[in-house]
Amino acid sequence: MTHPFENDLVALKEKLLIMSSHAGSSLQTAIRALVERDNDLAQKVIQDDAILDKLEIEIDEMAIVLLSKAPLASDLRLITMAMKICRDLERVGDEATTIARRCVELGKEPQLKPYIDIPRMARMAHEMLHEAMDAFVRRDPERARQVIPRDREVDQINKQLHRELASFIIEKPGTLSVCLHLMVISKSIERIADHAKNIAEEVVYLYEARDIRHSVERAGDPALLQ
Amino acid sequence: MTHPFENDLVALKEKLLIMSSHAGSSLQTAIRALVERDNDLAQKVIQDDAILDKLEIEIDEMAIVLLSKAPLASDLRLITMAMKICRDLERVGDEATTIARRCVELGKEPQLKPYIDIPRMARMAHEMLHEAMDAFVRRDPERARQVIPRDREVDQINKQLHRELASFIIEKPGTLSVCLHLMVISKSIERIADHAKNIAEEVVYLYEARDIRHSVERAGDPALLQ
Repeated sequence: MTHPFENDLVALKEKLLIMSSHAGSSLQTAIRALVERDNDLAQKVIQDDAILDKLEIEIDEMAIVLLSKAPLASDLRLITMAMKICRDLERVGDEATTIARRCVELGKEPQLKPYIDIPRMARMAHEMLHEAMDAFVRRDPERARQVIPRDREVDQINKQLHRELASFIIEKPGTLSVCLHLMVISKSIERIADHAKNIAEEVVYLYEARDIRHSVERAGDPALLQ
Repeated sequence: MTHPFENDLVALKEKLLIMSSHAGSSLQTAIRALVERDNDLAQKVIQDDAILDKLEIEIDEMAIVLLSKAPLASDLRLITMAMKICRDLERVGDEATTIARRCVELGKEPQLKPYIDIPRMARMAHEMLHEAMDAFVRRDPERARQVIPRDREVDQINKQLHRELASFIIEKPGTLSVCLHLMVISKSIERIADHAKNIAEEVVYLYEARDIRHSVERAGDPALLQ
């Protein structure tokens, strides 16, 4: 026995999952384009960003309609969180587009060396996104909470990669533009992990009604701090 | 004769304005720290970011309470937009913190040359933010609309600066780390302008109930489309 409003909420959640799956596959495709030096794949990511933009507008519209019908305060929270999550997903798409644009530029230059850290970071960021959305669907704040500290691991790889690329530039100044593109790509992946962390925090907040967004530093694993 | 709910909305808007003024002055202080090589000022920006984080949580909480009491659909839109705008303002604060952190690093290195473009970009971004919030208060979508194309000017200066800094690195590899810090600062200012543009778009959407977020490219001034 479900209330019609319940069905509307289910539809909202489903749309958010579709958006999340699009955002995740944009990231994967962008990284494949990078590794395989495939210009067409990169172009596809850039074009498909319009799908995410459209989904964001649709979810926002749906949410505003639902807000006017929401019977309970907890529904209001769910709906406003859905709006926030969809903003984060839209930004994931923007970062995937940034990666794809840089792939196109990298395609014009010789390859520096095989990519290892970048696909690894991207896998981690993608997993974080997947786990955070899974926690959202399963109403599992504990699972969402486990996503949060992993952002620091991605940060560390990004910083390490920046240092390596900086030494590369010093050794071989001819690689400057390739290295700068790779720095931007690495930073974009780090930002995607950041969005996944934001979503995880929203999920904890949603199901525990406690705001942890700006207290992660203190709650984080000290070994991972710095 | 005002309804009590009207007063609540006024209080929400006022809190948003306080937040916006904090975010704007964080940006200004960070740039002053950069230009004057003032470590204490930079530290102040980093510490004061907690104020913005706190304001974001307060506005969100206030908005959720108001949503449950909103009598009209247009109120729902105003409240959800306030939540979005406060997210953008919080990010402006994060970017100001990034700038301040890089200032601290730059303080350890000799100065490259007097800064001209960076303070100019920062002034433009700050003006955009101010105009967008002013349009919000005055319910003036036309004014908000004028903010949007200015984002491209900031983008152009950022790109130009990146090119200049890249040539600098090639000429004098010893300046690499200074140049990379300046690239990050320039990118942060560009992102602040981006947030100001987002806010302007939200304001247009709010008062014209038309979503222009993902159609700016098409609606933009062709002369600025490079």
